[in-house]
Amino acid sequence: MREVSIIGVGMHKFGKFPQLLIEDLGKVACIKALEDAGISRKQIEAVYCGNFLSEVQPGQRVAYKAGISGVPTFNLRNGCATGSTALWQAWHAISTGTFDIVLAVGVESMTPTIKGVIPLGDTMLLPKLGVSMPSYFALLAMAHMKQYGTTLDHLAMVSVKNHKNGALNPDAQYQKTLSLEEVRDSRVVAHPLTIYDCCPVGDGAAATILCSTETAKKLSDRYIRILSSVFSTTKYYGATANPLLSQNTRVCAQRAYKEARVTPQDVDVFEVHDCFTMTEIMIYDGLGLCEDGQGSRLIEAGETEIGGKFPVNPSGGLLAKGHPLGATGLAQITEIVHQLREEAGPRQVPEAQIGLTHNYGGLAASLMSDAMAGGVDFANCCITILSNQRD
Amino acid sequence: MREVSIIGVGMHKFGKFPQLLIEDLGKVACIKALEDAGISRKQIEAVYCGNFLSEVQPGQRVAYKAGISGVPTFNLRNGCATGSTALWQAWHAISTGTFDIVLAVGVESMTPTIKGVIPLGDTMLLPKLGVSMPSYFALLAMAHMKQYGTTLDHLAMVSVKNHKNGALNPDAQYQKTLSLEEVRDSRVVAHPLTIYDCCPVGDGAAATILCSTETAKKLSDRYIRILSSVFSTTKYYGATANPLLSQNTRVCAQRAYKEARVTPQDVDVFEVHDCFTMTEIMIYDGLGLCEDGQGSRLIEAGETEIGGKFPVNPSGGLLAKGHPLGATGLAQITEIVHQLREEAGPRQVPEAQIGLTHNYGGLAASLMSDAMAGGVDFANCCITILSNQRD
Repeated sequence: MREVSIIGVGMHKFGKFPQLLIEDLGKVACIKALEDAGISRKQIEAVYCGNFLSEVQPGQRVAYKAGISGVPTFNLRNGCATGSTALWQAWHAISTGTFDIVLAVGVESMTPTIKGVIPLGDTMLLPKLGVSMPSYFALLAMAHMKQYGTTLDHLAMVSVKNHKNGALNPDAQYQKTLSLEEVRDSRVVAHPLTIYDCCPVGDGAAATILCSTETAKKLSDRYIRILSSVFSTTKYYGATANPLLSQNTRVCAQRAYKEARVTPQDVDVFEVHDCFTMTEIMIYDGLGLCEDGQGSRLIEAGETEIGGKFPVNPSGGLLAKGHPLGATGLAQITEIVHQLREEAGPRQVPEAQIGLTHNYGGLAASLMSDAMAGGVDFANCCITILSNQRD
Repeated sequence: MREVSIIGVGMHKFGKFPQLLIEDLGKVACIKALEDAGISRKQIEAVYCGNFLSEVQPGQRVAYKAGISGVPTFNLRNGCATGSTALWQAWHAISTGTFDIVLAVGVESMTPTIKGVIPLGDTMLLPKLGVSMPSYFALLAMAHMKQYGTTLDHLAMVSVKNHKNGALNPDAQYQKTLSLEEVRDSRVVAHPLTIYDCCPVGDGAAATILCSTETAKKLSDRYIRILSSVFSTTKYYGATANPLLSQNTRVCAQRAYKEARVTPQDVDVFEVHDCFTMTEIMIYDGLGLCEDGQGSRLIEAGETEIGGKFPVNPSGGLLAKGHPLGATGLAQITEIVHQLREEAGPRQVPEAQIGLTHNYGGLAASLMSDAMAGGVDFANCCITILSNQRD
């Protein structure tokens, strides 16, 4: 296994662009990433594309529009972890020596087809009974409040923080600040979650160019090293597991820290999967930033603000930056790379040297399993730890 | 790169099973493959799943139903080459040493949603003008007749041969023989292609268990070695290319033969992507079995019959065995493994020692590209060469 680095990132702004096709969105992200890397499109040896909403041959179409054809192109899908699955596959192919320079791109056009919540499929028990993503996280939020004392204000604080950060990010879908009261008093989606507790539907793309660190040293003087990248799929624990504690995030994080030889305290900046405000609070303890169930204390103390001990989602996160499914995992990488290159402008985390991305998805697969009685968890989790420390 | 072998294969019969979910279909294939390999489900270290019609988390659902969870699970899509893309990814992960024992499974439930031809998406120029898969291959057939002298009877002969083989395959969707006249005089789908010139819509699953050859030697006395597996994505050649000659098949085949250190003449049995009768004739020269454009001579001379020089599609191929998209590439592997283990019963190719699978797909991506004027080709091609020769 050889070390992999990132030499270029690029995004198409997240937002509502129903008139754009995935190749229009993806092309912008790819061209920006190529320019950022300072390499030619002819140097790309393979393409790994993440797209969830089942476009026809998304990777081939996006690559072609960006001027790339004739290289192996793979299309990955893994629920909301689709983008990081493409990243992991690209990382894997370089780390094992199969390719040297690879493009990972995530792209999603949601607004033309998704109205309201994402359909979960009518072959599954809970969706048949009316359970959707928001209502499932609403159930978790109620249970979390009861078991760990989390409050409505704690949830709202996450949204306030992430919108504050998003207001500083020109690529974010929402660039406006919100008050605690605005979050709490906004339209209810599934009690206790309001519209500002939920990430929006949107369109966008993000691309990353990866290569071996050996090659990165020749091509770039500002490459970002990948210290570890771990992809895991949950084990269904059955009724003994606590659904408020994501086993998958825990297992994945422990491996990622170990392989990167860092502790949670060593990480300066985090981009995590805040599909709902409740989720971000649950991720805090999953990543080892606090004791089990105590995420609300971190947000209340301001520890996850940009100036805090564990800055989380300086990009605005899924809540404010947006969540075009297949693009999210790679947009997280884009943000961390900008942070570690000190290019994040007004939302820069001072002296950030080590960053972490956490992307998960596939809850629907768990909801339909027999294990749902107690062991529901996201099916997939991918955690990547990056560093700007060079030889 | 270490060598990879196959120790188990299994299928769910192809056919029309609208009442079955993908996990029902996939479970049967996986359990059969595990039993065939004689290993426990706990020995599986990763799952690569091919599914085209965008089911929610297909790999996770199928694996869970087969008793497998907690191992990295990836969902691949690449048009009609989806199954072989999953196979290639599994092969790659073992050959690079990341995993040792891996399950590749392809599954598709088409009949509940696909009525008539597969929709190509309305964002693309040619589909907007009414071009579908059958009508595109009808255009190719007309051009092939004009340029190379292929006739209606030649097309029909492919269907007759593959239905004759399919009648001997209990897992085939259609198990009845057809006469030349029946094919030629059946309902026209897109002139000159009749209903029997086109593969059917269907449901089914196929699974393969792969491991390093080193491990295979310990676990099995009838393992089948993978001499080479090549995945390629086409380069858009523009108007200089001849659309009647698949550049992608040529490039992929040349690499596969070279890496396996065999010639076309060394291969005893072929499973190829006969989505239409015209396609099989075009694949003959793509694989180097005859001169450019001369495929009709091979079928006319009976060379691709089970007793011929180059037996093609003893399983019945896509035309008779069926083509549940994501399952096809892995069903081809299943057939070749049975052939190389001399388990194919009445359709056994005598003394088959080396076999080849050819699966391609992603024409839609090409149809929408600007290159369609002259250089249309399948976007993806995967060729795998297998051998029963052991140390």
